[in-house]
Amino acid sequence: MTLQLHLVTDGKKTREQLVCILSDVHESVDVIHVREKDRSAKEIMEIVEELLASGVPAGKLIIHDRVDVARVMNCYGVQLAYHSLGISEVRKYFPHLRVGKSVHRYEEAIEAERDGADFVLYGHVYPTASKSGKTPKGLDELSSLTRSLRIPVIAIGGISPEKLPELRAAGAGGIAVMSGIMDAKDWVQAAKAYQTGRLAGKEEIR
Amino acid sequence: MTLQLHLVTDGKKTREQLVCILSDVHESVDVIHVREKDRSAKEIMEIVEELLASGVPAGKLIIHDRVDVARVMNCYGVQLAYHSLGISEVRKYFPHLRVGKSVHRYEEAIEAERDGADFVLYGHVYPTASKSGKTPKGLDELSSLTRSLRIPVIAIGGISPEKLPELRAAGAGGIAVMSGIMDAKDWVQAAKAYQTGRLAGKEEIR
Repeated sequence: MTLQLHLVTDGKKTREQLVCILSDVHESVDVIHVREKDRSAKEIMEIVEELLASGVPAGKLIIHDRVDVARVMNCYGVQLAYHSLGISEVRKYFPHLRVGKSVHRYEEAIEAERDGADFVLYGHVYPTASKSGKTPKGLDELSSLTRSLRIPVIAIGGISPEKLPELRAAGAGGIAVMSGIMDAKDWVQAAKAYQTGRLAGKEEIR
Repeated sequence: MTLQLHLVTDGKKTREQLVCILSDVHESVDVIHVREKDRSAKEIMEIVEELLASGVPAGKLIIHDRVDVARVMNCYGVQLAYHSLGISEVRKYFPHLRVGKSVHRYEEAIEAERDGADFVLYGHVYPTASKSGKTPKGLDELSSLTRSLRIPVIAIGGISPEKLPELRAAGAGGIAVMSGIMDAKDWVQAAKAYQTGRLAGKEEIR
């Protein structure tokens, strides 16, 4: 199984930067998480409209928290966090949306699968500047989780391309990358490095 | 026509205060706008759950901005602001929700009606502490607007119960009250004063 490659926006770019980066890299990633916590529904909708106009397919877009925006823009899905609506409510009223849940503990992930999540984002797996001071989960906890769940566990947090073989070995269904692509000087090259890495990882496992 | 009485929450109360006030006054008002801008979707959902458990009917609840929360809680409708999703998108994908739009200018109100809003909240009509330094619209502008629109214009901003006859004469379809009830020492009495006022207004017009 090829690792899914998710790109997560960081909420720190201007609208122009965001549209530029995502338009450039979308062909190298499977899923784009529009995670713009400080933007209004209108702003997120307008960003999505610009992305679609730039050729990014709606079927690759996952909207963080705003289920309504995901719905009206016919996006692939929504990513729910602790502060979001519940998985079961979203499944019931928005049956066409894929539902991801961000989890930080084993029990939360089990609960997310039970409630009907399509996948979980689990992390942070490695040390990362955005979670400094907090202990990373590490590969053992990731393995323990992937053995317990049937839905894909997407690993997030401090992932560089050379980590992909060990993440695959730990059972991850994919990886989610934020600063590794969003803050790269050459984001196209960075996205391609992850893409190559996950294919290389596949070769090694074979 | 009896003036509709809308109560708008101020986003400043604790959850307990909010549920207490709204449970106490809901029988005296037609519509309650849950306008809690700084709360998450999960928090708003939990507040709505507590309100329903306290006997407040979902059919009286309008959620500010979060169309998704209004949908999953089967609320009466949603109130859209400048930063929200557009009226036409909401109408298309959420046909069961009533859609109010908050407007501050004549042209915005005309546009809202054209886009399919069920009503507009228009203000502020009178001077109010929450909009200090900004010139109120006044009755003449309100009259001009109500003559141009077929949908109800709900007046908001600095409305005390004795203003109801002149607001009715200006063609308002209703009034929306925030601090006049939310900050009253006796919110039940305050809500009843508005309720009596709108009936008294009706008598006078007759």
